[in-house]
Amino acid sequence: MMAKQVEHDQLYIGIDGGGTKCRATIYSAIHGVLGTGLGGPANPLHGFERTLESIMVSTQLALQDAGLRVEQVHELNAGLGLAGVNLPSLYDKIMRWDHPFKQMFLTTDLHTACIGAHEGEDGAVIITGTGSCGFVLVEGKSANYGGHGFAQGDIGSGSWMGLEAVKAVLLDLDELGPNTALSAVLLKHFNTNTAMGIAEQMAGQPSSSYAKLARYVLDAAKAGDVIALEIVKTGADYISRLARKLLQQNPPRLSMIGGLSEPLSEWLDPQVAKQVELPKQPPEMGAIYFAMQSIRRQSEHLV
Amino acid sequence: MMAKQVEHDQLYIGIDGGGTKCRATIYSAIHGVLGTGLGGPANPLHGFERTLESIMVSTQLALQDAGLRVEQVHELNAGLGLAGVNLPSLYDKIMRWDHPFKQMFLTTDLHTACIGAHEGEDGAVIITGTGSCGFVLVEGKSANYGGHGFAQGDIGSGSWMGLEAVKAVLLDLDELGPNTALSAVLLKHFNTNTAMGIAEQMAGQPSSSYAKLARYVLDAAKAGDVIALEIVKTGADYISRLARKLLQQNPPRLSMIGGLSEPLSEWLDPQVAKQVELPKQPPEMGAIYFAMQSIRRQSEHLV
Repeated sequence: MMAKQVEHDQLYIGIDGGGTKCRATIYSAIHGVLGTGLGGPANPLHGFERTLESIMVSTQLALQDAGLRVEQVHELNAGLGLAGVNLPSLYDKIMRWDHPFKQMFLTTDLHTACIGAHEGEDGAVIITGTGSCGFVLVEGKSANYGGHGFAQGDIGSGSWMGLEAVKAVLLDLDELGPNTALSAVLLKHFNTNTAMGIAEQMAGQPSSSYAKLARYVLDAAKAGDVIALEIVKTGADYISRLARKLLQQNPPRLSMIGGLSEPLSEWLDPQVAKQVELPKQPPEMGAIYFAMQSIRRQSEHLV
Repeated sequence: MMAKQVEHDQLYIGIDGGGTKCRATIYSAIHGVLGTGLGGPANPLHGFERTLESIMVSTQLALQDAGLRVEQVHELNAGLGLAGVNLPSLYDKIMRWDHPFKQMFLTTDLHTACIGAHEGEDGAVIITGTGSCGFVLVEGKSANYGGHGFAQGDIGSGSWMGLEAVKAVLLDLDELGPNTALSAVLLKHFNTNTAMGIAEQMAGQPSSSYAKLARYVLDAAKAGDVIALEIVKTGADYISRLARKLLQQNPPRLSMIGGLSEPLSEWLDPQVAKQVELPKQPPEMGAIYFAMQSIRRQSEHLV
C-alpha cells in the first residue's frame, strides 16, 4: 500500500551523462514527461567537477522546461547513468556528493541505456559511437564486454575506425603498405601533402577526433576500397561476435545504440542483424526506470 | 687557413635530447672527449621549457665532469639533436632561444643518430625503442620514414608491441578473441583478474607505459605463443620493409639503434639482418660531428 502511494506521488529526473553532453528528463508518474535539459560533458573519468556541473546545468534547464521552481530540485528522485561508476571508488565518490535531490540512485550509463532500450525490461544493448561495448541484463544478472577505451579496445567504434584509417594511410604514404583511396581523402581532410602532416595533426588527439574520420572509412568501403573494406568488415565482425556473446545469455531483446549502429548494420552477420530491434526509450528514460525500480525495492524492504 | 685554426681551437658539446633523458658530451678537437652529463626529458614536443632545462642540466654536469668552469659554456660550439624540429615552427622556436653557447646548430635526433652511427659519414639508421623510425642520409639528401607516434604509427616498436599485447589480452579475457599466454602474464603484471582491471590501469597511459610490456611479448613469442608470435613477426616484418626502403637509397652502412634492436634482430628478414652493422658512435657524438660539419660549411662560405 505504502509503496504504491509513494510511487504515484513522485517526481523523477533521469540523467544520462556522456563524454560530450548530459541529458536530463523530468518525469511524473501521473503526467509523464514534464521537461528536458541539456548540459555539457559528464564523464566522471574525464573530469569529476565538470560532471557535477553538467548534471546541475541539465537539471536546472529541465526544471525550467517543466515549469517547476528551482527549489523543487529537492523533490526529485534522481536516477543517474554515468560512465566509470562500475569502479567502486568512483561510485562512492559520486554517492558522497552533497546532491540537492530528494534521493539519488546511481548506476552505469550502460545499465540505464539497456533499461531504456527495453522500457525497464530485461535485454541487451550494443553501443557503437565514439567507443563500443556490450551489456546484457537478464533476471537481475548483468555482464558487460568491451568498452576498454581508445586505443586499446572499442573495436568497431568510430574512434577505432578512424585510428585504423590513419594507420593504413601513414603506411601507404611511406610506401610501406598497400595503396588505399583513404590516403587522398585524409590528405585533403588535413590539408597537407605528407604523412608527417597527418601524424602531427592527430598526435595526442582524443578518441573523438579519430571518430570524426569514421565516415570516410564507411564511404570508401562502400566505394569498394580494399583497405577500407577490411577495416569495416573487421569492425563489424567484432560487433557480430559481441552480439552473439550477449545473445548466449538469452536476453528477450537486443538493441544497438549510437551513431555507428545504423551504418554498421548492413555489415553485420545477417543472423545477428535480424535479431537487432530498435531501442524503445532513450537512456535518460532508462535512468528514470532505474530510480523507480530502486525506490520500489527500498519499499519492499521496508514492508 | 682561418677555417683550420678555428676548428682546432674549438670546444664542442653534443646534445642528444630524448623522451626520457638528455645526454651531453664535451669534446675538444685536440684532446677528444672531456666529459659527459645526463639530464632529464628533452623532447620539445612534450614540454618546451622542460627541454631547455634538461639541456642546461646536462651541459652543466658535462662542464663539471670535464673540469671546465661554468662560464666556459660560452666557449662551446653546440650541436643539438632533438625530436620534432623537422617542424619549421619548432625549429625556429628553439633557434630563438637565448642560449649560452658560442654557437648553436640544431637538427633532428634522427639526423644526429645517423651521423653518429656512421662516424660522420653517409648511412642509414633504424631506431626501435619506445617508438620506431628510419632515416637515410646519402650525399646531402636525407629521407625519413615512420616515427608517426603512438598509437597510430611506430610499428615494431616497444610501445606498439605493448599495445598489441593489451588489445589481444582484452579480447581473450572477454572471450571474443583467441587464447594467448599473454593474458595470464598481464593479469599478473597488473595484479588484477579482469579485463577492465587492465584497461583501467592502462587508460590514458603514455607510450612508455606500453613499451614496458614489450619484453613479455618477446618472451611469449620465444615460448611459442601464437598471438605473441604474430605480434613480433608483424613488427619485425615492418622493420624489414623499412630497412629495404632505406637500402634502396644505397647508403654505405645501415645500423639499428634502440632497446629493441637487439631482440628484434633474430626476427628480421635474414637478407636484411646480415646488412645491419653496429653503430660506431652514440647520437651525442653525432651531434658533435654535426656542429663540426656546420662550422666547416660556414668557413667554406666565408672563404
